[in-house]
Amino acid sequence: MTDSALDQQCVATVRMLAAEAVEQANSGHPGMPLGAAPMAWALWSRFLRHDPAGPRWPGRDRFILSAGHGSALLYALLHLTGYELPLEELKNFRQWGSRTPGHPEYGHTPGVEATTGPLGQGFSMGVGMALAERMLAQEFNRPGHDVIDHHIYAIVSDGDLMEGVASEAASLAGHLNLGKLVYLYDDNRITIEGGTELAFTEDVSLRFAAYGWQVLRVHDGEDVEVIAAAIAEARADGARPSLIMVRTVIGQGSSKAGTSHVHGAPLGREELLAMRRRLGWSDEPFHIPEAVGAHTRQALTRGAEQRREWEGRLAAYRQDHPAEGARLEARLKGEFLPAGWDAALLALDFGGKATATRVASGKALNALAPAVEGLVGGSADLAPSNNTWLTTVAAGRNLRFGVREHAMAAMVNGMALHGGFLPYCATFLVFSDYMRGAMRLSAIMGTPVVYVLTHDSIAVGEDGPTHQPIEHLASLRAMPELRVIRPADAGETVGAWHVALTHAGPTCLILSRQNLAPLGADPLRVAQGAYVVSDPPMGDPELILLATGSEVELAMKSQQALALKGRRARVVSMPCWELFDEQSVEYRESVLPPSIKARVGIEAGASLGWHRWVGEGGVILALDRFGASAPGGEVMKRLGFSVENVVAQAEALLNR
Amino acid sequence: MTDSALDQQCVATVRMLAAEAVEQANSGHPGMPLGAAPMAWALWSRFLRHDPAGPRWPGRDRFILSAGHGSALLYALLHLTGYELPLEELKNFRQWGSRTPGHPEYGHTPGVEATTGPLGQGFSMGVGMALAERMLAQEFNRPGHDVIDHHIYAIVSDGDLMEGVASEAASLAGHLNLGKLVYLYDDNRITIEGGTELAFTEDVSLRFAAYGWQVLRVHDGEDVEVIAAAIAEARADGARPSLIMVRTVIGQGSSKAGTSHVHGAPLGREELLAMRRRLGWSDEPFHIPEAVGAHTRQALTRGAEQRREWEGRLAAYRQDHPAEGARLEARLKGEFLPAGWDAALLALDFGGKATATRVASGKALNALAPAVEGLVGGSADLAPSNNTWLTTVAAGRNLRFGVREHAMAAMVNGMALHGGFLPYCATFLVFSDYMRGAMRLSAIMGTPVVYVLTHDSIAVGEDGPTHQPIEHLASLRAMPELRVIRPADAGETVGAWHVALTHAGPTCLILSRQNLAPLGADPLRVAQGAYVVSDPPMGDPELILLATGSEVELAMKSQQALALKGRRARVVSMPCWELFDEQSVEYRESVLPPSIKARVGIEAGASLGWHRWVGEGGVILALDRFGASAPGGEVMKRLGFSVENVVAQAEALLNR
Repeated sequence: MTDSALDQQCVATVRMLAAEAVEQANSGHPGMPLGAAPMAWALWSRFLRHDPAGPRWPGRDRFILSAGHGSALLYALLHLTGYELPLEELKNFRQWGSRTPGHPEYGHTPGVEATTGPLGQGFSMGVGMALAERMLAQEFNRPGHDVIDHHIYAIVSDGDLMEGVASEAASLAGHLNLGKLVYLYDDNRITIEGGTELAFTEDVSLRFAAYGWQVLRVHDGEDVEVIAAAIAEARADGARPSLIMVRTVIGQGSSKAGTSHVHGAPLGREELLAMRRRLGWSDEPFHIPEAVGAHTRQALTRGAEQRREWEGRLAAYRQDHPAEGARLEARLKGEFLPAGWDAALLALDFGGKATATRVASGKALNALAPAVEGLVGGSADLAPSNNTWLTTVAAGRNLRFGVREHAMAAMVNGMALHGGFLPYCATFLVFSDYMRGAMRLSAIMGTPVVYVLTHDSIAVGEDGPTHQPIEHLASLRAMPELRVIRPADAGETVGAWHVALTHAGPTCLILSRQNLAPLGADPLRVAQGAYVVSDPPMGDPELILLATGSEVELAMKSQQALALKGRRARVVSMPCWELFDEQSVEYRESVLPPSIKARVGIEAGASLGWHRWVGEGGVILALDRFGASAPGGEVMKRLGFSVENVVAQAEALLNR
Repeated sequence: MTDSALDQQCVATVRMLAAEAVEQANSGHPGMPLGAAPMAWALWSRFLRHDPAGPRWPGRDRFILSAGHGSALLYALLHLTGYELPLEELKNFRQWGSRTPGHPEYGHTPGVEATTGPLGQGFSMGVGMALAERMLAQEFNRPGHDVIDHHIYAIVSDGDLMEGVASEAASLAGHLNLGKLVYLYDDNRITIEGGTELAFTEDVSLRFAAYGWQVLRVHDGEDVEVIAAAIAEARADGARPSLIMVRTVIGQGSSKAGTSHVHGAPLGREELLAMRRRLGWSDEPFHIPEAVGAHTRQALTRGAEQRREWEGRLAAYRQDHPAEGARLEARLKGEFLPAGWDAALLALDFGGKATATRVASGKALNALAPAVEGLVGGSADLAPSNNTWLTTVAAGRNLRFGVREHAMAAMVNGMALHGGFLPYCATFLVFSDYMRGAMRLSAIMGTPVVYVLTHDSIAVGEDGPTHQPIEHLASLRAMPELRVIRPADAGETVGAWHVALTHAGPTCLILSRQNLAPLGADPLRVAQGAYVVSDPPMGDPELILLATGSEVELAMKSQQALALKGRRARVVSMPCWELFDEQSVEYRESVLPPSIKARVGIEAGASLGWHRWVGEGGVILALDRFGASAPGGEVMKRLGFSVENVVAQAEALLNR
């Protein structure tokens, strides 16, 4: 068989495997795999440096299927090239317990570099990966030692390019000259509702040129060689990211090719049979021609070689640069916290002064950064307000995302997935709304990223309702696998950073704009989620004031005012509901004894979720309305967050 | 005084008023008003058709300050041109109870057309307004009767242009050839963190050309005449939206001009004094030169004339086209529901068959559309799945947003603000995450828009965790002023649409992908938020099964299974928590009698919020984890949503 004929056979095999998996599941998206198989094959057979037998080596190229609905394409390639993904898994496509879920899931299937499906996310995570590659290379490469040198590839779709998150990331990728980024655009002119002329007629090529990308075109998406030549040209430009616009036909090879009907539904048995006939294919389901199997599995030997070659490069680097080599290896292994990493953090002294938790967070970050070398991050153009700028280390560890919250969050996901970095990012809490799509992927994938979310309540003040979060605490707490920590003072902020950096998943730090009085508690008690800050000096408590963040100070003052009236209140700080949930029943009942029914929950945010803590005998002082523009202290008082009101509510409870 | 000198005095007055308001409040953003005053003045003095004494006439041009942090600029213009905004209000800038909040708030200050501040939203709402203008013109204008013919203007900033939502909206505006859109870009090259070279170096002009916009440049943002000429040129192109890039200097006239320091903090008394001296300004605070006051208030006579002229046009139209004229006037007044509007809706008959609520919703929409002529909308490329396509009316009432959820939501806000339409939009519930920024503005402004959010739980099935909502119900319920309705069958879906269209604010309809058995209840009971669907045939209930949406069917089946075991369960459907909250205590206690402590809350979503309804004696069958890819029915069962599990939990409760 000629090389070209073998290529055609490989492409056909990918197509048939994907179509059959969808058929077997009676669910899925055949159109994209059928159309994009040649470009995927061109990339995987000619360029992608990967080792199916050892898929996690840091020197590998990264491949992202941003158009995640085409998962069957990726699973076919993974199986054919020898990943731990038996044919049985393709037959179990989209079934309970299989490794072949409907959309690719990171951590679930070997060789899947990112969870994709929500459009635009894969595109943007790739930009984060390319940034991580560049930053690692700049930090560690030495003359004669290009130990970090790999590419980030993706297949992206019309849908990806329409999403705002991808526009933001593309603009930033161009700004940052991320030349290692090579994206193949599956330009099939079809969306779910019909042709792209219905809603997508912009000049994509011109737009990406405006961002500073190299834009290349392949007019025939069936031509593996021409696609390969374009990829080579893209790689040759090290100064600009590249978008290769590959004109394809969705559902190529089926009779519904070129229509939206082939996007998201199985082809049907008959159509599949017809395709088999046209290709001269065996009737055996999930058939893989022998020559194809042998050829595609060369990825194993090629990949093993590439991996060994890179390991050799790493060894040579370690020999010539032992200190850097050791640091690099630790970073690549995800070992970010050397012995004593938290010494400077825990030694922070705020002099007993009232401090905004955003300011305390800035100090914590700067105390951490010298020891935690992988810690990098930045803000969506709010660094001076978010207090996220690192001054204690090289300026290059600060990232500037511009006013692009969604791309920022997706990019830190990409950086965390890439490895070598423990990234954080920042904006106002209210604008977490702009990046929830990416935050959800942090939670699903378990990426260890830190979201620094400041200006956390109506106490923001003058900026008014558009800038005052209300529902955000509740809506973030509702998300599984996401830790939400709202520290009550500088000390708890230190504890919150400690907890965040030792957690193998995403954490939100919810921080105040305004100064908060110190509680004097052990910062590490944050790890318990909630704890008793203060009990009445004499006698057992008859009432519990539960609060988070800035409202703990209000609870403390209210406790004193109540004491003057002979009322015995306990103050509980609840910085993190998720962590409190993880404690033993004994501990939880020691903090919130079932016998004390009189409870006041205090939080300047939505009441949703608080009934759980205050029970039927308690009251909630919260906000189920939007805020207002006025000085922060005044807004707080006007909306009920005053000692007078807490005392009144507590007394009413006790007298009930 | 020459015209030009008078212009300069007017611009200086706007600048001084804005700077003094910020100074007085000791809070706010002086930089933008100082830099953008000339372009704002050029627009407001030469082009903007508006009547300060009657700001709501439908024929007016719309002006949006997308860079809402420059609110002081807008307030200065509103005061000077004679709106109901006394100077006292400028002196009370950003204070409790003033009409001059930190960011412009629609409905709060006369002449403010949209709430802005969250960047990109104003830009995108303007696109929605321009679409509304175009659709109304196409529907109602007749030869010789251009009764609908006005422009949408905005001032937009670097931050607006960086946001993905604006990119999406810009692409769509170009696609739709919205020639009435004229945006002035305050191109000051400064963001909060510093110069735009830090993170924003794309070629904006080329990018907007790629979207199909006319791009014009003004090199000197101080030159009112040149800016005016550019606006005239922009207006002359009726086929393309226009972006006028006006090079400005942030904080112009202050000594910190051209730096980020002047963006978001008062100038300081000394600096203000120096500015006064440079301008030869009076020392009197909030000084308005007499000639300026007289000149700017000409807007009142000009505006009254323009309004009369338009009212004359409308009268002539009504004379020549009485039927259309009456319909148009009703629409412009927001009278969307003629007598009998709901007859076809309430007559819908689903034949007692199990029906997906998304399908029922599609039928409801199509039953409503002929009578409710202002009802228009569409989906972010998921119309076939969201069932949002209108077939019973002209195809032009269907909108195609492409895969652009965020711009879609912002645009329907803009359409609702513009008037003449009752818009809806649609995507999968899980992707509401992509548009929360705009949904929050719906809630803050109270725009009557309907969000059709289908595929509402893990029952989505094969598409897996990225497409299965978990936390979304809770996170939407947490948002103030937003109604979230999750109907349990086709009948409740009819009721949900009824409630949504009669509500003066935003509503989310949360709909199932899968078929649901009919409950046989009166559809309009949805308006009560929750109600008893079924009580045990004999004896008082000893247990309540509370559920929403698809889980009501599960509750019904569990009730029967429990009956076989001699257990008497009541089934309560809770389609809308917000509406239930609005009912009387008596009604609420009739549905959930305090005496029945044994309660099982059932919802395939996050548990957050459910403790409130089940109390300390109840249990919650919910999901505080992500889903999985497999057929929907199997995922439901595996994750506990089975009759067996509900019965087991109920019995455990009763035996406790």
